[in-house]
Amino acid sequence: MAQLQQLIAAGGKRIRPALALVGWHAAGAGGEPRAAHHLAASLELLHTCALIHDDVMDRSDTRRGRPTLHRALARRHRGSPAAAERFGTGTAILVGDLALIWSDELLHTGRPTAGQLAALRPLLLAMRTELILGQYLDLERTGGRRADAEPGDVEAALATIRLKTAKYTVERPLQLGALLAGAGPPVLEALSAYAIPLGEAFQLRDDLLGVFGDPTATGKPALDDLRDGKATVLVALALRHADAAQAGQLLAALGDPDLTEEQAAAVRRTIIATGAPRRVQQMIARRRQRALSSLVRAPLAPAATEALRTLADQAVHRLL
Amino acid sequence: MAQLQQLIAAGGKRIRPALALVGWHAAGAGGEPRAAHHLAASLELLHTCALIHDDVMDRSDTRRGRPTLHRALARRHRGSPAAAERFGTGTAILVGDLALIWSDELLHTGRPTAGQLAALRPLLLAMRTELILGQYLDLERTGGRRADAEPGDVEAALATIRLKTAKYTVERPLQLGALLAGAGPPVLEALSAYAIPLGEAFQLRDDLLGVFGDPTATGKPALDDLRDGKATVLVALALRHADAAQAGQLLAALGDPDLTEEQAAAVRRTIIATGAPRRVQQMIARRRQRALSSLVRAPLAPAATEALRTLADQAVHRLL
Repeated sequence: MAQLQQLIAAGGKRIRPALALVGWHAAGAGGEPRAAHHLAASLELLHTCALIHDDVMDRSDTRRGRPTLHRALARRHRGSPAAAERFGTGTAILVGDLALIWSDELLHTGRPTAGQLAALRPLLLAMRTELILGQYLDLERTGGRRADAEPGDVEAALATIRLKTAKYTVERPLQLGALLAGAGPPVLEALSAYAIPLGEAFQLRDDLLGVFGDPTATGKPALDDLRDGKATVLVALALRHADAAQAGQLLAALGDPDLTEEQAAAVRRTIIATGAPRRVQQMIARRRQRALSSLVRAPLAPAATEALRTLADQAVHRLL
Repeated sequence: MAQLQQLIAAGGKRIRPALALVGWHAAGAGGEPRAAHHLAASLELLHTCALIHDDVMDRSDTRRGRPTLHRALARRHRGSPAAAERFGTGTAILVGDLALIWSDELLHTGRPTAGQLAALRPLLLAMRTELILGQYLDLERTGGRRADAEPGDVEAALATIRLKTAKYTVERPLQLGALLAGAGPPVLEALSAYAIPLGEAFQLRDDLLGVFGDPTATGKPALDDLRDGKATVLVALALRHADAAQAGQLLAALGDPDLTEEQAAAVRRTIIATGAPRRVQQMIARRRQRALSSLVRAPLAPAATEALRTLADQAVHRLL
């Protein structure tokens, strides 16, 4: 389990635990009791499961600037390369399962009351199920080139990030923290009105960084999203506004596992020429504005509202 | 999720849910309330997760006489074979995760009391963790031919089946059912004294069937265990008692993914020549006797004791 520790210690933005604590305060609760910290940590462990399984599914080589867990485990095996890969993949699946099991345990060792647990449970189930469905949509829309996939489908790409990021990463952690503090429907709805547009902005920015970001800052190669053919809103917009030659070039390059750095540079130039990055920037700005406006008359504790405002700026300007 | 339904409906022995209900009655509780049925069903769903992830890890083609989930899902993909395989594997990992998440949910929708939940939780965590550790030991000892693996290590093979089958499949389900019924330490210990030898006997029989069983009855090809190089007690005993020529033949064949049916027949003859199947049969008989003896003065309800006695006979004589 040293591997699991290392992966968690290697960082990541820890946005879900932070948001759970913001949600706790947003509901007007004071202090930060053990149960709130355990809830926050359990969300990070759940997410660690998602990352490990995601890397296995995507066959990614690096995560947070280090080898992915399945690659690191494969290296420790002394058999043939095929046996080592199989051992690494299998063990990573198991470590992910363990992270999922322990995330549940971690919540309970925070000793929430029976009332708190009963309040959290339906939302926790919803969040976990949304996580899996979001991963599935990603998988279905990535690299597969299915006959029924529509590469320029901006709405489908938006639906995926609503589930995967807006709900799973932002809305649910905020609401879970608030529920632990005993929040009722008005607070939960206010958090949702903020979280959905902000989460979409966050992911739109993530997708931009995935293609145009600095790998030394983001910790993952800027080629991965292109090689995987990740069907982001950015790519969908580029394809929708591309002329025939541009579309042909993009469709040939996206999802090509052997894409070179030079070819990627050409793809980036084409994406810029379609105007897609500018459109995505506008979408981000609109969503940030919507998230900020939702806070104006929200029934949330002032200090938490301030934190949510700061976060809205960070999400839009972040470099990693 | 139709795929998940099909897999569960396709059968399997459902031994864990059955044992949970036996445990419930063994503790002297009457009726079969909703909470007991939900606990039983949740164990089956947890096991379904284990099967799905196990098949991905082992890259198995069939399970319960049908294509494994990842193979069935790959077939539904219309991309290249590589893309289809990736989609099938990725989706199967997610469906397994979902089964794990829902197994927890299923337990809770049975509406156990807070006291029952508190009693179950430590054992549930232990069971899930043991499941993962057992899978890991299997993975580490299968096909990998690690430099530090000792192919004739009977004790290591026994340790694996104690964790994987004796505890996970027999002891924990019995104890969980009993705990739900409010059982104390004497009942839990009596169940353990029965479960460990019986679970070992069950798995030893399973390993015999994996090499010598009738594939139409067991639902899995009799070649799989040999091709995987599964380090069973049977194989460990064969290697320990083999002469140099026999050992050479076995080590060359075990774990060979291209092993033919003819080569497998030769391996079976060699295993029989080493006397290993006879030794395994003796081990099964001794363990059955130990399990039965443990029941003589056990503080368990008479009807449940009778069921446990019948089960001990079935485990030893079963054909699938």
